[in-house]
Amino acid sequence: MKYYPVHAGYPPYAEVNPAIEAAFAEHGRGNVQMPPKVYVTFVESGDFRTMPAYLPAQEIAGVKIVNVHPHNRTRGLPTVMALTVIIDITTGIPTAIINATELTALRTGSAGAIAAKYLAPRHPVTLGIVGAGRQAEAQVEATAASLAIEEILVWSRTEKSAEAFAARYSDYNARSVPIERACDCDVLTTTTPSTKPVVMADWIHEGTHINAIGADAPGKQELDPTILENAEVFVDDPGQATHSGEVNVPVGTGYYDPARIAGTLGEVVIGKKGRSSPDAITIFDSTGLAIQDLAIAALVLRDGDGGYELPFP
Amino acid sequence: MKYYPVHAGYPPYAEVNPAIEAAFAEHGRGNVQMPPKVYVTFVESGDFRTMPAYLPAQEIAGVKIVNVHPHNRTRGLPTVMALTVIIDITTGIPTAIINATELTALRTGSAGAIAAKYLAPRHPVTLGIVGAGRQAEAQVEATAASLAIEEILVWSRTEKSAEAFAARYSDYNARSVPIERACDCDVLTTTTPSTKPVVMADWIHEGTHINAIGADAPGKQELDPTILENAEVFVDDPGQATHSGEVNVPVGTGYYDPARIAGTLGEVVIGKKGRSSPDAITIFDSTGLAIQDLAIAALVLRDGDGGYELPFP
Repeated sequence: MKYYPVHAGYPPYAEVNPAIEAAFAEHGRGNVQMPPKVYVTFVESGDFRTMPAYLPAQEIAGVKIVNVHPHNRTRGLPTVMALTVIIDITTGIPTAIINATELTALRTGSAGAIAAKYLAPRHPVTLGIVGAGRQAEAQVEATAASLAIEEILVWSRTEKSAEAFAARYSDYNARSVPIERACDCDVLTTTTPSTKPVVMADWIHEGTHINAIGADAPGKQELDPTILENAEVFVDDPGQATHSGEVNVPVGTGYYDPARIAGTLGEVVIGKKGRSSPDAITIFDSTGLAIQDLAIAALVLRDGDGGYELPFP
Repeated sequence: MKYYPVHAGYPPYAEVNPAIEAAFAEHGRGNVQMPPKVYVTFVESGDFRTMPAYLPAQEIAGVKIVNVHPHNRTRGLPTVMALTVIIDITTGIPTAIINATELTALRTGSAGAIAAKYLAPRHPVTLGIVGAGRQAEAQVEATAASLAIEEILVWSRTEKSAEAFAARYSDYNARSVPIERACDCDVLTTTTPSTKPVVMADWIHEGTHINAIGADAPGKQELDPTILENAEVFVDDPGQATHSGEVNVPVGTGYYDPARIAGTLGEVVIGKKGRSSPDAITIFDSTGLAIQDLAIAALVLRDGDGGYELPFP
């Protein structure tokens, strides 16, 4: 067994995006095994999620384990840390343990890029960014690897963060703007940990595509539920989305009927589903799939030269 | 993060049994978080199961990942291999990875010993053993640490295995016998991977306690379902038992109503449930709980001096 700290660098989005897209396509075709992720919640500190899956097309199987501990910020630790255990299909031997903290950010960025590629109303795109943390960076960089970006309009609760973010992406004409202005775009990406809507329906014009990335646990939401009223909502996985994605709160209150979900990103990728018209508001509700973790793990295993040899069995 | 190959020896049953019993007691009191184990199945080779849990009383949380690959026998590899990832409750950091292959055998043996302690019709006990593999050994050794054993009657499909098994446990008057004779005992323990009943109702007399250990996946069963008709069935976890324990097949066919389950081993341990009379036939349907894995992991972490330091986060 090998342990992969992935200290030697990460695969570039030019490789990650196609690998993640291929995994979504397999999901769209129904060729993966992926039970819904399982949550274990600590009373005060946070939670961890267990995500097993099998991706036959890429001959990889395993489990990602990922925590969310919001108070880690005050400790100088990452809020989210992850590891992936790879299981040999033929023998069941654990063959690798991969530090998946950064890989989790990358594969989530890729999902947004893939959604933007298929669901944006036009290309090149103006990106609106709500929330300017690590995942917002991943979304911009993954998208930039797949699409031409004309302009980035970024808003953060902390204006300084938005300004620093804009400075980092000056190549893409990034600017710090009020939130209403950030919503006036082709692809709006939300990456906050909010439990109350931060994006209001009035700010969203026809033809916008929204990548709703932040909501990944019960009780979280970023969008005014009124937006869902007239939107075509695509999810990564219906079970996970209704449990913990952007739609989980409106589904829980009965405001949004999960039967209205327009399809999965996998179905979009294989051309089975898509936006119905250039004027439609589309939403990609991302919760994060275990097969994304396996797809990016496969890249690391292909490239990696390993870390520590661990005795197993 | 530390990796624990547990090469320096294992905790003795004298320590494991009380630790596992304490975990069952917490389960009986409803003080644990333990979603049902999740199966991922490979078409030809086997499966793996993911078992997350949180045991607040012992301040330990984590995930066991365990495979079952029956064809490994022909490769000289263990059929079952396991590792446990321990997650720090306060920060979410993975703090240890434990090779749990042997620990899985030990904690399963302990569960049988605990069931025998509380549900055997009398002490000391005559043990009947059906199936003479690694888990049968664990059951005998765990039970011997908690109860006085008068005699062991062992049967295996391969008579040579039964004879070798009997020779190993000659201290407990072990003998290789026909299967009907093995069933004439106080505590009958079945540890085969069978998918068809091997123990018939006619062979079981009143007052017997049966530890049904082998069935741990959908489709597996060891007992003639007629035995369930007049038995008091205790399970480790109702959800897991109906999905993959001894009762899974009769529940699936509608023969056995899961509402008839008499209680959990945890409820037995805390004195809330138990055998109704000395003449009752009682069954403990063991599927294996993630909290058993955490309880034994806690022993290893207390004793262990670690293996490899792994960089995390």
